[in-house]
Amino acid sequence: MEAVVRYAAENHDRFLEELKDLIRIPSISSSTEHKDDVDRCAHFVKEIMLGIGLESAEVWQTDGHPIVYGECLGAPEKPTVLIYGHYDVQPVDPLDLWETPPFEPSIRNGRMYGRGSVDDKGQVHIHLKAVQSWLKGIGTLPINLKFLIEGEEEVGSKNLNVFLIDNQKMLAADVVLISDTSMLQKGVPSICCGLRGLAYFQIDLRGSKQDLHSGSFGGAVKNPIHALTEIVNQLKDEKGRIAIPGFYDDVVDLVPGDREALAQLPFDEEDYRKEIGAAKLYGEEGFSVLENLWCRPTLDVCGIWGGFTGEGSKTVIPAEAHAKVSIRLVSHQDPETVAALFEDYVSKIAPPEVEVSVQRMHGGLPFLADTSHPAFEASVRALKKGFDSDVVFIREGGSIPFVQ
Amino acid sequence: MEAVVRYAAENHDRFLEELKDLIRIPSISSSTEHKDDVDRCAHFVKEIMLGIGLESAEVWQTDGHPIVYGECLGAPEKPTVLIYGHYDVQPVDPLDLWETPPFEPSIRNGRMYGRGSVDDKGQVHIHLKAVQSWLKGIGTLPINLKFLIEGEEEVGSKNLNVFLIDNQKMLAADVVLISDTSMLQKGVPSICCGLRGLAYFQIDLRGSKQDLHSGSFGGAVKNPIHALTEIVNQLKDEKGRIAIPGFYDDVVDLVPGDREALAQLPFDEEDYRKEIGAAKLYGEEGFSVLENLWCRPTLDVCGIWGGFTGEGSKTVIPAEAHAKVSIRLVSHQDPETVAALFEDYVSKIAPPEVEVSVQRMHGGLPFLADTSHPAFEASVRALKKGFDSDVVFIREGGSIPFVQ
Repeated sequence: MEAVVRYAAENHDRFLEELKDLIRIPSISSSTEHKDDVDRCAHFVKEIMLGIGLESAEVWQTDGHPIVYGECLGAPEKPTVLIYGHYDVQPVDPLDLWETPPFEPSIRNGRMYGRGSVDDKGQVHIHLKAVQSWLKGIGTLPINLKFLIEGEEEVGSKNLNVFLIDNQKMLAADVVLISDTSMLQKGVPSICCGLRGLAYFQIDLRGSKQDLHSGSFGGAVKNPIHALTEIVNQLKDEKGRIAIPGFYDDVVDLVPGDREALAQLPFDEEDYRKEIGAAKLYGEEGFSVLENLWCRPTLDVCGIWGGFTGEGSKTVIPAEAHAKVSIRLVSHQDPETVAALFEDYVSKIAPPEVEVSVQRMHGGLPFLADTSHPAFEASVRALKKGFDSDVVFIREGGSIPFVQ
Repeated sequence: MEAVVRYAAENHDRFLEELKDLIRIPSISSSTEHKDDVDRCAHFVKEIMLGIGLESAEVWQTDGHPIVYGECLGAPEKPTVLIYGHYDVQPVDPLDLWETPPFEPSIRNGRMYGRGSVDDKGQVHIHLKAVQSWLKGIGTLPINLKFLIEGEEEVGSKNLNVFLIDNQKMLAADVVLISDTSMLQKGVPSICCGLRGLAYFQIDLRGSKQDLHSGSFGGAVKNPIHALTEIVNQLKDEKGRIAIPGFYDDVVDLVPGDREALAQLPFDEEDYRKEIGAAKLYGEEGFSVLENLWCRPTLDVCGIWGGFTGEGSKTVIPAEAHAKVSIRLVSHQDPETVAALFEDYVSKIAPPEVEVSVQRMHGGLPFLADTSHPAFEASVRALKKGFDSDVVFIREGGSIPFVQ
């Protein structure tokens, strides 16, 4: 083990330079313009895998961007860990807000700046370099490892599921490890054990067959914008609870142990508020900020539109109004069940003067790990040793498409 | 008088052709592309005035589009009537919804189709041709007449006020006559004696310094779209009354006589509903549709926007949300007083988690004529004779900038 740490320490600067090379590839998965770069990045990751000494590594084509798979199975009888990560990155606009160019990584105040450095090339790189340090320092790994590094995480992992189904045997593992969330604070080793799920809708309302003049018709018709605001206002009650009947039936309640663990995390609500730039924080009554972010379902209108939205004034009662609604789910809620409840409720509360319809846009399952699994104990031990600091369990309010 | 009617009847077809010539000029006042057409139209109207025998007619330049003024003051000791109208027209988009081109007037089923035929070239033309029939048929007018035909009614009569102030003496009249509203029904001679005023606002809300992810931040911040829908919902109560404190203080109540007169008008709510294409009509409780349209103030959100409004789903809690609000006023409400009440109320009901501001965009005074004035009696007599039908008094829910 000493040899492993020594190899990592001796090669620290080289590892950093190699990470920069990985970040320099503009592997923006949402951009057709960067398709070749995404492809190039997949092959670059494969070469890293072979270079560090994995037994095999391969680029798998999909209907979208390629998946890189590599493995090192030299520890019979030992557990197998599948490490998931992604090599694609988000778009970089607006460019003028970057202090240094996104694909020319630079280190300032001990942090590396560059697109993908924390999402998710940095994490992928750390895992690979840890394996390299083992293989070069000692020559073998204490467990079996599989790497699945995809190129479509930022665009919804559209082609991943087919790959998972087609390659179940190859991918079989005792534990799946994902490093694609944040640490609670710098220096605080954090294990994320829960993600929220998602149900996303669009509400469409129609009041009349065409736009009407607000002078000539104001007073005789229900304005669909007003109908929409009435619907939105009935989606949550005055305590911030989602008002859809039956919505909380499958929600796993927070137990005292959970709440104490969350309360003990180093998290300052006032610092958080300042970072967001909000005048005041707001959430479901009776729950702390972290409880609301991680363990409670939430509902947000992500977009609303109707009528005249340009400069100046136009006196119109629009024929239509629309809203997009994101509902974050927690265990054991199911997006399909929630979608049915949502549709029923919206049609029930819609004023009779308007026609209403609901489109189901997107869904994803929540996830909550059973932290009594021995893999968690091993992770805590390893992180504690590495960081020389207590390990915390955290959750994440968003979703990762791979996790189901 | 017989000679007047005979002249009009004999020249009916020629008058129609002349109206078509007037409508053929695309005098769209909002379009810089059509500036020359607007100018040409002003001179065309002046030539009509001189052609029918007015003593004088002139095109007056303004900072915007020109005003045409003409007069015939050959009846000393008799009252003077100022006839107001406008020769500019609205834009014509979308063109594919026109059955025949907007500037190639065509007659179908006894109606003339062409931009401006009922707003307001047709009405202006009728007045001028009536004068022509008097002057050609008899040689003199029984009263003094002044014509003020402007070219900016469709863009808010921006330069009219300066002209009115600068030419008070020239424009002085006992009665002002405007033909720029509709008849209640075909064949029902209608005198419009009231217009609603207007106060128009934009509400701007900010919740955080930048857009946030609905997964990572949902549950900890007040979404400004939700804050906005809460504000909108408190602008009216469950009876459809405007909930701004003090808002109704200056409203002239409907008296039993008014209500009876409105109730006796030939107006079918079901036909009206079908024309609009609404599932159900809606208005302030305790008032008929016409009462709500003409005699009661109303409030409509004319536009609302915030967050992601494109195709598909984006999981965002937007930093901002906005709405445009049109309030229609009735006598004796004042737009400035209402603006102050509106601003106070919105800032009072805005949730503490968001920053709110109100922009004043536009205002206009309501108008209600005193129908005991002898001009109304004369108008009723004339219309009754011309149409051989009872005359009705109506109001209009919109505004005409000239009327103050």
